[in-house]
Amino acid sequence: MKILIINGPNLNLLGQREPDVYGTQPFEAFLETLRAEFAGHDLLYFQSNEEGALINRLQQAQHDADGVVLNPGGFTHTSVALADAVAAIQVPVMEVHISNPWAREPYRRHSLLEGRCAGTLAGLGLEGYRLAIELLTESGGKQVTS
Amino acid sequence: MKILIINGPNLNLLGQREPDVYGTQPFEAFLETLRAEFAGHDLLYFQSNEEGALINRLQQAQHDADGVVLNPGGFTHTSVALADAVAAIQVPVMEVHISNPWAREPYRRHSLLEGRCAGTLAGLGLEGYRLAIELLTESGGKQVTS
Amino acid sequence: MKILIINGPNLNLLGQREPDVYGTQPFEAFLETLRAEFAGHDLLYFQSNEEGALINRLQQAQHDADGVVLNPGGFTHTSVALADAVAAIQVPVMEVHISNPWAREPYRRHSLLEGRCAGTLAGLGLEGYRLAIELLTESGGKQVTS
Amino acid sequence: MKILIINGPNLNLLGQREPDVYGTQPFEAFLETLRAEFAGHDLLYFQSNEEGALINRLQQAQHDADGVVLNPGGFTHTSVALADAVAAIQVPVMEVHISNPWAREPYRRHSLLEGRCAGTLAGLGLEGYRLAIELLTESGGKQVTS
Amino acid sequence: MKILIINGPNLNLLGQREPDVYGTQPFEAFLETLRAEFAGHDLLYFQSNEEGALINRLQQAQHDADGVVLNPGGFTHTSVALADAVAAIQVPVMEVHISNPWAREPYRRHSLLEGRCAGTLAGLGLEGYRLAIELLTESGGKQVTS
Amino acid sequence: MKILIINGPNLNLLGQREPDVYGTQPFEAFLETLRAEFAGHDLLYFQSNEEGALINRLQQAQHDADGVVLNPGGFTHTSVALADAVAAIQVPVMEVHISNPWAREPYRRHSLLEGRCAGTLAGLGLEGYRLAIELLTESGGKQVTS
Amino acid sequence: MKILIINGPNLNLLGQREPDVYGTQPFEAFLETLRAEFAGHDLLYFQSNEEGALINRLQQAQHDADGVVLNPGGFTHTSVALADAVAAIQVPVMEVHISNPWAREPYRRHSLLEGRCAGTLAGLGLEGYRLAIELLTESGGKQVTS
Amino acid sequence: MKILIINGPNLNLLGQREPDVYGTQPFEAFLETLRAEFAGHDLLYFQSNEEGALINRLQQAQHDADGVVLNPGGFTHTSVALADAVAAIQVPVMEVHISNPWAREPYRRHSLLEGRCAGTLAGLGLEGYRLAIELLTESGGKQVTS
Amino acid sequence: MKILIINGPNLNLLGQREPDVYGTQPFEAFLETLRAEFAGHDLLYFQSNEEGALINRLQQAQHDADGVVLNPGGFTHTSVALADAVAAIQVPVMEVHISNPWAREPYRRHSLLEGRCAGTLAGLGLEGYRLAIELLTESGGKQVTS
Amino acid sequence: MKILIINGPNLNLLGQREPDVYGTQPFEAFLETLRAEFAGHDLLYFQSNEEGALINRLQQAQHDADGVVLNPGGFTHTSVALADAVAAIQVPVMEVHISNPWAREPYRRHSLLEGRCAGTLAGLGLEGYRLAIELLTESGGKQVTS
Amino acid sequence: MKILIINGPNLNLLGQREPDVYGTQPFEAFLETLRAEFAGHDLLYFQSNEEGALINRLQQAQHDADGVVLNPGGFTHTSVALADAVAAIQVPVMEVHISNPWAREPYRRHSLLEGRCAGTLAGLGLEGYRLAIELLTESGGKQVTS
Amino acid sequence: MKILIINGPNLNLLGQREPDVYGTQPFEAFLETLRAEFAGHDLLYFQSNEEGALINRLQQAQHDADGVVLNPGGFTHTSVALADAVAAIQVPVMEVHISNPWAREPYRRHSLLEGRCAGTLAGLGLEGYRLAIELLTESGGKQVTS
Repeated sequence: MKILIINGPNLNLLGQREPDVYGTQPFEAFLETLRAEFAGHDLLYFQSNEEGALINRLQQAQHDADGVVLNPGGFTHTSVALADAVAAIQVPVMEVHISNPWAREPYRRHSLLEGRCAGTLAGLGLEGYRLAIELLTESGGKQVTS
Repeated sequence: MKILIINGPNLNLLGQREPDVYGTQPFEAFLETLRAEFAGHDLLYFQSNEEGALINRLQQAQHDADGVVLNPGGFTHTSVALADAVAAIQVPVMEVHISNPWAREPYRRHSLLEGRCAGTLAGLGLEGYRLAIELLTESGGKQVTS
Repeated sequence: MKILIINGPNLNLLGQREPDVYGTQPFEAFLETLRAEFAGHDLLYFQSNEEGALINRLQQAQHDADGVVLNPGGFTHTSVALADAVAAIQVPVMEVHISNPWAREPYRRHSLLEGRCAGTLAGLGLEGYRLAIELLTESGGKQVTS
Repeated sequence: MKILIINGPNLNLLGQREPDVYGTQPFEAFLETLRAEFAGHDLLYFQSNEEGALINRLQQAQHDADGVVLNPGGFTHTSVALADAVAAIQVPVMEVHISNPWAREPYRRHSLLEGRCAGTLAGLGLEGYRLAIELLTESGGKQVTS
Repeated sequence: MKILIINGPNLNLLGQREPDVYGTQPFEAFLETLRAEFAGHDLLYFQSNEEGALINRLQQAQHDADGVVLNPGGFTHTSVALADAVAAIQVPVMEVHISNPWAREPYRRHSLLEGRCAGTLAGLGLEGYRLAIELLTESGGKQVTS
Repeated sequence: MKILIINGPNLNLLGQREPDVYGTQPFEAFLETLRAEFAGHDLLYFQSNEEGALINRLQQAQHDADGVVLNPGGFTHTSVALADAVAAIQVPVMEVHISNPWAREPYRRHSLLEGRCAGTLAGLGLEGYRLAIELLTESGGKQVTS
Repeated sequence: MKILIINGPNLNLLGQREPDVYGTQPFEAFLETLRAEFAGHDLLYFQSNEEGALINRLQQAQHDADGVVLNPGGFTHTSVALADAVAAIQVPVMEVHISNPWAREPYRRHSLLEGRCAGTLAGLGLEGYRLAIELLTESGGKQVTS
Repeated sequence: MKILIINGPNLNLLGQREPDVYGTQPFEAFLETLRAEFAGHDLLYFQSNEEGALINRLQQAQHDADGVVLNPGGFTHTSVALADAVAAIQVPVMEVHISNPWAREPYRRHSLLEGRCAGTLAGLGLEGYRLAIELLTESGGKQVTS
Repeated sequence: MKILIINGPNLNLLGQREPDVYGTQPFEAFLETLRAEFAGHDLLYFQSNEEGALINRLQQAQHDADGVVLNPGGFTHTSVALADAVAAIQVPVMEVHISNPWAREPYRRHSLLEGRCAGTLAGLGLEGYRLAIELLTESGGKQVTS
Repeated sequence: MKILIINGPNLNLLGQREPDVYGTQPFEAFLETLRAEFAGHDLLYFQSNEEGALINRLQQAQHDADGVVLNPGGFTHTSVALADAVAAIQVPVMEVHISNPWAREPYRRHSLLEGRCAGTLAGLGLEGYRLAIELLTESGGKQVTS
Repeated sequence: MKILIINGPNLNLLGQREPDVYGTQPFEAFLETLRAEFAGHDLLYFQSNEEGALINRLQQAQHDADGVVLNPGGFTHTSVALADAVAAIQVPVMEVHISNPWAREPYRRHSLLEGRCAGTLAGLGLEGYRLAIELLTESGGKQVTS
Repeated sequence: MKILIINGPNLNLLGQREPDVYGTQPFEAFLETLRAEFAGHDLLYFQSNEEGALINRLQQAQHDADGVVLNPGGFTHTSVALADAVAAIQVPVMEVHISNPWAREPYRRHSLLEGRCAGTLAGLGLEGYRLAIELLTESGGKQVTS
C-alpha cells in the first residue's frame, strides 16, 4: 500500500525545539524507522507551512496514495478549506496530533477536521504516526472505523 | 503487565444495538481475542453504568493494574468526579472512544477527561482498545506520550 | 400490557415535602389508584437516586416491559448516559415532569432526553403519570406520537 | 364547560402536508371526533396565521370560555405579545405541540409561553389535544397542575 | 447535637495524593481530632464516590442528624439531583471546599449548591470542617446565616 | 497580632437597613464584641465607599497589619484594581460576605478577588468576620489555606 | 398640533388587570384627562394587538400627525419591522413604557426601537404619556433631544 | 408561468424614502417594467405589513402561482411562522433583499428563511427581483438550485 | 420639597464639549433656570467624578433630600456599588440620561441601576432633568411609578 | 469588459465530486458556455487553493479587470486577509456561492466578505456565475447595487 | 512641551513588588532619568489609586499639558468613566502598559480605552513610557497616528 | 545587528490606498528612510500575502536575523500557525500595527500573536516600525520587555 504522511505548519522544526517534549530526532530520521518497520509498504512524505500546498497535496493523494496520515498542526483549528479537502477525497485520512491539543489554549479546543477523518489519535507522541499507519495498512485502505 | 479495561454506561449493550456500526459481537467475545493477542499480559475487565462504581474501580487500579484503558461513554462529557479520579491516580490511563464523539451533538464536543489522560484514540472502533493496550504494554507502564 | 414507571432522584420524598404543591400522598398510594384504574395492565414501579441504577432498570425494561413512564428528576438536565439508555432500548418511553421545569432556574431549561422520548408531559402534576400510561396502553406499545 | 381550541400559524395546513407524520385528516375532521367524545362540553375552534388575531381571540376567551387549548405553532418561540396575553387572562391555558419542538432547530428550543401555561403536552400528535381537553374538563376549569 | 459530615467523590484519597497541599493525614485521623474537640457532640461520617449514595445519605439526615457539613467534591458543579436533595431536607447544610474551587478550571466556577446551603467556606483547608461544625453547634441547628 | 477589618461600599449602613436580615446593630457595636473576644489582638477598622481609599488602605496594611479581613461589598464584582491590590501585598487577606452573593443577580456571580484571597467565607452573617479573625490569629499570619 | 398615541398589544386590557399596578382606569378614561389638559392640541388614539396594523398606522402618521407617542408593548423586543417603520417616517416618535421593562425577564432587556425614537420614558406609569405629549407639543414637532 | 412577487413590511414605502439608495420610483412603476420584460408570464403582486397576511398569501400561492419571489423585509430575522410557511408549500421561493442585510445591525445577520428558499439574492437592488424571475421562468418552476 | 440633583463623571464638562449636542451652557447656568421654574422648591446640586463621593452623597440624601435626580454618567454601566446605594436609601431616585445610552457602544447597553430607580428618562437632553423634578415634586416624594 | 472569475479552494474538483449536486461538468467546460454567451466580453479565469495566491490575483485585478466574480469557497468564513483585499481594490466584486452556505454547519454561517462585496448570489448553482457576469456587464463596471 | 505622565492604581508599588519583572527602581527614580533625557520638556507626574482623581487630573490636562502618557492599570478594563474622560479632552493621550495585558486573565483582554487613545504601547516595560514621550514630543502635540 | 521587517497581506498596497490615512509613500520608500536612520544595522525586508511564506520567512529568521518586526495584517486574528511560528523561534519579535486594530470590527479584537511577541505597538502609524527597530537595536537582541 501507498501511505502518504502529511505534516502541517511548523512540524518541520521537530527535533529542534522543545527536545524534552519532542525528542532530538528530526521527523525525517523517525521516517526511516517507520519505513524499516513497514517495509512492504510505500511511505510518502510531505511537509509544508502553506495551507494551499497541503490542500493540493491532499487532492493529489487520490491519484497516488491508498491512505493518508495527516497532522494538520495549527490548521486543525482554522482551516475550513483543508477540512473541505479531506471531505472531498475518497482516500481514508487518519488525523494525528503529537500532543493533546485539547489540553492547551481554548482556541485549540475546536477541530474542524475531526468529523471528517477516519479516526483521531492524540497525545501519543510520534507513536501516533506508527499506529495510524498500522491501522491503514491492516485495513487495506478500507474505511477502518465504526 | 496488568491492564484494566473499563467500559462506562451502556457499553454493556455492545453487540446488541446498531450491529451495522458496532458489529454483532459482545465486548466479552472481543475481550477473548484481546487476551489471546496479549497472552503475556493480564487483561482485567470492568463495566458499570454507575459513575461511582467507575470511580471506585479507577481508584483501586492503583493497587492492581499497571495501566488503564478507559471508555467513559456518556460520562465523558458530564463527570467532573470521574475526571478528578483519573487525575488522582498514578496509573497511566488511555482514553478510547469507539466512534468519534466530536461528530455528534454539541454537548458531546466537550471532554472533561482529555487533558488528564495519557492519550486519546477516537473513531477507530474496537481497534482503539487493541492499540491502547499495545501502547501501554510497549511502554511498560511509563507515561507514553509527549 | 406491562408498564414500568421509573422515578428519578428525590421523587421518593413525594408527599413529605411541599404538600401544598405535591399533596400529602406518597407516590406509592397514588400508584395504588393507578393500578385500580388500569386493572387490565401490569404496573411495575422503580425509584432510585442513583443514575446507574436507573440506567440498569431502563436497559432491563427491554425484557420485562412494553412501555416506560420516566420522570428523570434532576437527571433530566445532566445525564447524557441516561439519555443514551433511552435511545438504546426499543421500548417506548414517555417523559413526565410533575411541575414545569422550564419555569425554574436556567440550568433546568435544557433537557437531554426530550428528543429521545416518545412524548413529554410537563406541569400536569400526578395527572401526567396517568395520561402517559393511558397513551401507552391505548397505543398497544407502538410509537404513539407524530 | 366551554373549551376553546386555538391553532396558530400554518396549522390550517394539517392533513395536507407531510401525511406520514400528521395523517391525512384535516383538523376540522379530528375536531368532530373530539366533539363526539366530549359531548357534554362545548368545543370552540379558532385558527389564524395572524399574531394579533390570536391575541384578540385569547383575550376574548375571558368572556366565552372556561379553558383554552393553545397550539401556538411558530409563535411559540417569537411572540412576547402572545405570552403576555396568556399571562393577562384568568382562563387556564394548556399548551400543546403535535411534535416535539425541542427535537428540532435550536431557535425552537426556547418557548416564551411555557412558564405561563397551566401545562405542556409535546410530541403526542393529535392525542395531545384530546388529553388537554380531558384535563381541563376534569378539573372543572380550576388550575389543574402543581 | 448530631453533626453529619459528608465527603463526596475522591475525598477518600485525602492524605494519599498531593501531600504538600492536603497534608499526609487521612480524613479519618483528622476526624478523631474533631471528635476530641467537639466531645459533647456526635460526629457522624459518610464518604462515597456515588452520587445516589450521597443523596440517600442526605435524605436520611432528616432522621438522624441536626446539621450537615457537606463537601460535594466534583459533584458541586454537575449534580442538580444533589442540589435538589439539599433543598428538600430541613436540616441546615454547610458547604465546605478544602481549596478554592473558583481558582481552578472554568467549569469549576459554577456551584449548583450554593444558593441552597446555609453557608459556604472555601479555601480554608481542613479548618473549614472545624469552623462549619463550630457554626452548626453554636447555633443549635437553627439557620445560622443572614 | 494586628488584624485590619476593611468594609467596602454601603457597609456603613449596616444596622440601618433591612434589620430582619442584618440585625439592628451597627458594625461598630459588633466590633466592640469582637475586640472583647480577641482581647489579646489589635483589631483595626476601616470603611469607605471609595475604591481608591480601599486600595490605599490595603497597600498600607503591609506596614501596620498581620492579616486583613476584607468585605469588598459591591467592588467584589467590578474592581480589577482592588483585586490587584490584594495580589500585590504580602499580608494574608480573608474574604468575607455577609450573605451569599452567588444566590443573587447574575452579575454578582463573578468574584474578581477569590483566586487571590487566602480563603472565602460566605453566607455566614457577621459570624463570618469572627471566624476569619479566628483563622488569621490561630495561624499567626501564615498562609492558612491549602 | 396633532399628536397620535399608539398602544401596542394587550394595552387594551389596562384597568382590567393588575389594578394595584396600573390602576382601575381604562386608558380611554385617562385619554379624556389628557385631552382636557392639552386642549389646544388634537390627540388621536390607536390601539391594536396586530403588528401590521401598528406599522400601517405609524406609516400613516406621516400624513395626519405632528408627533407620535408609542408604547410598543411586547413588540418592543421582537419587532424589527416596527422599528423599521419608526425609522422610515419623518414624524418624531417618543417611546413610552408604563413599567420599567429592564427590570423583568432577560428577553425584555433588549429594545429594538430605542436607537430610533426621539426619547424614552420608562417606569413612570401613565405619567409617561403626559410627559411625552408635553415634550412633543413644547418642541413644536422638532427633534427634541440631544 | 405565474410568478407571485411578495413584499414584506415597509416595502410599500419604496420610492418615498432614501431616494439616493432606492431611487424615486415606487415599486408599482418598477413592476410595470418587469411585466413588459416578462410579457409571456403572469406577474402577481402582493404587499403587506402584516405577518399573518403574508403567510396567508404564501399558502395560497400553492393554488395560483408557479414560483414566488419573496422579500420578507424585517420579518427575515424574526418570523419563524413565515419560514414555516415557506417550508410548507411546494412552490419554489426565491429570497430577495434589496440591500445586503448582513452589512447592518447584528440582529439582521440571522435569516430564518435562507435554508428554506431555493436561492438568495442580496445587495443587488431592484435587479434582484428581475434576476429571481428570470431564474424561476427559465427553470419552468422546477427546483433551480444545487 | 428638597430635590438633590447628582451628576456623575465628566458631566462637569457640559457646555465645553460637543456644543452642537449639549449646547454651550454649563450645567450651573441651566440649574439657575430650573431654580427659577421650581421656585417653591429647594434644588441642591452635587457633581463628582469619584464613585465613592457619589455614593456618600446619595447616602446623605436620606437626611437632607425628598427626592434625587441622578445622572450616573459612565458609572451607569459599571458600578454595582452605586446601584447598591440607590437600593439602600428610602428617597425616590429618578435616573436621567441626556442622550440615549442604548444607541451607543454595546457596553453601554446594560444599566445596573434601572431596576432600582423610580423611573428612567433617556434621550431627552436637559429637558430630562426638568421632567424628573416635575415628577418628583408633583408626587410629593412618594413612589411615583407603577 | 474584462471580467475575472476567481474560484477558491477545492472548487477545482467541480465535476468530480458529488455529481448529483454539482453535475458532471468541470468548471472549465461551463466556462466555455459562459464565454460563448458573453462573446463581446473577456472572461478571465483563476483558481487556487492558496489564500495568498487568491489575494495576489485580486490585487492584480485592479490592473487587468473591470469586474470580479468571486467564489471564495472555504475562505469565505476564515480569511480576514481576503476580505481586506476585496475592500482594498476599486473593482466591483460579486460574491457567488453554488450552494447556500447558511444551510450547513454553524461555522459556515459567518461570512467575512459580504459587507464588502457589491452583491451576493447564493444557492443558485452554476447559474450564480452567469447572473453575476450579467450584472457586472450590464452595469458597465459601476457599482451595481443599492 | 509639557507632558503629563499619569499612573493608575497600584503602580505606586513599582520597585517594591515582583522585582524580577519590574526591576527594583521606584517609578520616581525612573522619572528622573526621563527628565534628564527630555531636558527641553516639562515632565509632570501624577499617580492615584482613585478613579475619580485620575479623571479630575485628565480633565485638568487640558489647561496644563500638551500631551498625556497614561497607564490606567486595573482601570483599563473596567472604567467607562475614565475612557469618557480621555474622549472628552483635546490633548493627545498615549496608552502604555508595562506588561502585555492580553497575555493574562480573560477579563484583562478588553480595553475600554484603546479606541480613544492616540496609540498603544504594550509589553515594553518602562521603555514604553520613554517611547510614548518621544512620540508626543516629536509630533509637537499633534495627533501622531494614522 | 540584522533586523528583519515582515509585512503581511495587503501591506504591499501601502501608499496606494487611503492616502489620507497611510500617506502616499510606498513602504519601500519609507524603508530607505529607516535604513538611513539605522545606518549601523542591516534592515532586511519581506512582504507576502501568503501565510505559509510568512511562516517560512519567520523560521528562517533564526539563521539570518537578530530581531524581527512583524506586521501580520489580517493574519493577526486568524493564523494559529503564524503564532506557533513566532513561539517556535528564538529571535525576539516585535508586533506592529499601523492603525489600532481594536478600534475596528469585533473580529479584529482578538490577536492570536500578542502573548507570544516581545511587545506590541499599535496605532502609531509608520512610526511604530521605527520604534520597534529602536527597541530591538538598543537591547542588542535580548528580550526587551518585562
